[in-house]
Amino acid sequence: MGRVTERRKVLRIRDGEVSTRPDTLVAEEPLEIRLNGKPLAITMRTPGDDFALAAGFLVSEGVLASASELQNIVYCAGATADGSNTYNVVDVRTAPGVTLPDFTLERNVYTSSSCGLCGKASLDAVRTTARWPIADTPPLRVTPELLAALPDRLRSAQRVFDRTGGLHAAALFSEEGELLDTREDVGRHNAVDKLVGRAVQSDGLPLSRTILMVSGRASFELAQKAVMAGIPLLAAVSAPSSLAVDLAAETGLTLVGFLRGSSMNVYAGEHRIALREPAERS
Amino acid sequence: MGRVTERRKVLRIRDGEVSTRPDTLVAEEPLEIRLNGKPLAITMRTPGDDFALAAGFLVSEGVLASASELQNIVYCAGATADGSNTYNVVDVRTAPGVTLPDFTLERNVYTSSSCGLCGKASLDAVRTTARWPIADTPPLRVTPELLAALPDRLRSAQRVFDRTGGLHAAALFSEEGELLDTREDVGRHNAVDKLVGRAVQSDGLPLSRTILMVSGRASFELAQKAVMAGIPLLAAVSAPSSLAVDLAAETGLTLVGFLRGSSMNVYAGEHRIALREPAERS
Repeated sequence: MGRVTERRKVLRIRDGEVSTRPDTLVAEEPLEIRLNGKPLAITMRTPGDDFALAAGFLVSEGVLASASELQNIVYCAGATADGSNTYNVVDVRTAPGVTLPDFTLERNVYTSSSCGLCGKASLDAVRTTARWPIADTPPLRVTPELLAALPDRLRSAQRVFDRTGGLHAAALFSEEGELLDTREDVGRHNAVDKLVGRAVQSDGLPLSRTILMVSGRASFELAQKAVMAGIPLLAAVSAPSSLAVDLAAETGLTLVGFLRGSSMNVYAGEHRIALREPAERS
Repeated sequence: MGRVTERRKVLRIRDGEVSTRPDTLVAEEPLEIRLNGKPLAITMRTPGDDFALAAGFLVSEGVLASASELQNIVYCAGATADGSNTYNVVDVRTAPGVTLPDFTLERNVYTSSSCGLCGKASLDAVRTTARWPIADTPPLRVTPELLAALPDRLRSAQRVFDRTGGLHAAALFSEEGELLDTREDVGRHNAVDKLVGRAVQSDGLPLSRTILMVSGRASFELAQKAVMAGIPLLAAVSAPSSLAVDLAAETGLTLVGFLRGSSMNVYAGEHRIALREPAERS
């Protein structure tokens, strides 16, 4: 556990020059998440913050919303032939009385009715499992200048990426642009789950007055995780997908993409962006 | 189907200047893959090449290895309330006599025995489901110069990325560096599944004399897909993970990372890289 990086020998070729040297790689290991003893999902992740990852995953799935609903999280030990603990299986126990969503037998996460699966059904699934609306009262208001400063703050906090180039990062910022927390993982969804999981463990949900910033693209899944945690603004360095924009528009999430230098695109929820001069609008 | 991009209105902010304009986004929709009528997995993908995506996914899972094992693939239609087809559910029918792996009831894809889940178990799972070893006889041999030319060839073939910035790309090259096929998708694993699926549909597996090139990082999952398709060389623009390197070393896959300009790192299977002068080795 906590093996964030590993060393491997690598043959390095630079302009025809060949050398052998040790290289630092991002660690990747499977994690099985169990809910009350029942296997629910397996994710390939960077070890570390595994309890937060499991808790955050269950927030995204609508199972957990507060620390009181969480009884405990343990590594599942002693079931291997030699009795060792691989630290790759965690069991999340919910408090008595917590009702669980109906995970179908055949598969996890998205459930669909017969052949009706479509983008609309995905949006509906988020809306019906969300534990609260995005409710920032008064609405969060940030300037483009504040948003433009976030990528540099995220990068300066990305210590492992500097060594391996192999990690996705996610960070929570306050509405004043202060870095509240940041996580890195080989999977972008895991980095966000770890942030949200730490928040639910300390009973900090909904994250009504925060900004979620991610180092890559804004997929539907990342927008879903922001909505489920009650985060009002998701900002991404790269492009969003069509379904991420649709989900943001439907739930009231502000979605910013291509946040680079002093430039950005606002795809939904522009009421949270404080523009200086209405006259500048074309 | 085939909706690779979609248009949305976007608020564009550039150095304080604000304008509203239409923007092209990469399309993302869920796809449910059924095997002989039974739901197996849901992936968020860019619509298009859905049959290839489903077939390639099943190659990665050890279900399919040849066109003769594939009876047909259909969109699952008519089960919605209004009888419409969402083109987001495909059913893959295997030919009579094809034995299917034992997918556990509780979850898909990776199966683990009790608490023994670990990186080693993930490697073992690939080895036991692989339908053939990587068997390029005589071994594929490529020069660093040939590999260095591949990223530009991949980028020049990436048409949708130019418009949206939101797609992962994967390409198959011959051992002479000729582009054989390329696919783009919002999910990097889907792009590879689409390539492999097209190959199995035309009975082209194993892909023993090809190079798989991906636009991003080399995760365990991508290395697994290369191994399951019998591809001897995986090259990535960015970093590999520790488990991807371990899988490559164990299966004999050549794994090249950080392929940029005339530079690259070879993490495993260096016997396939034709170095000019042994004296240059340090």
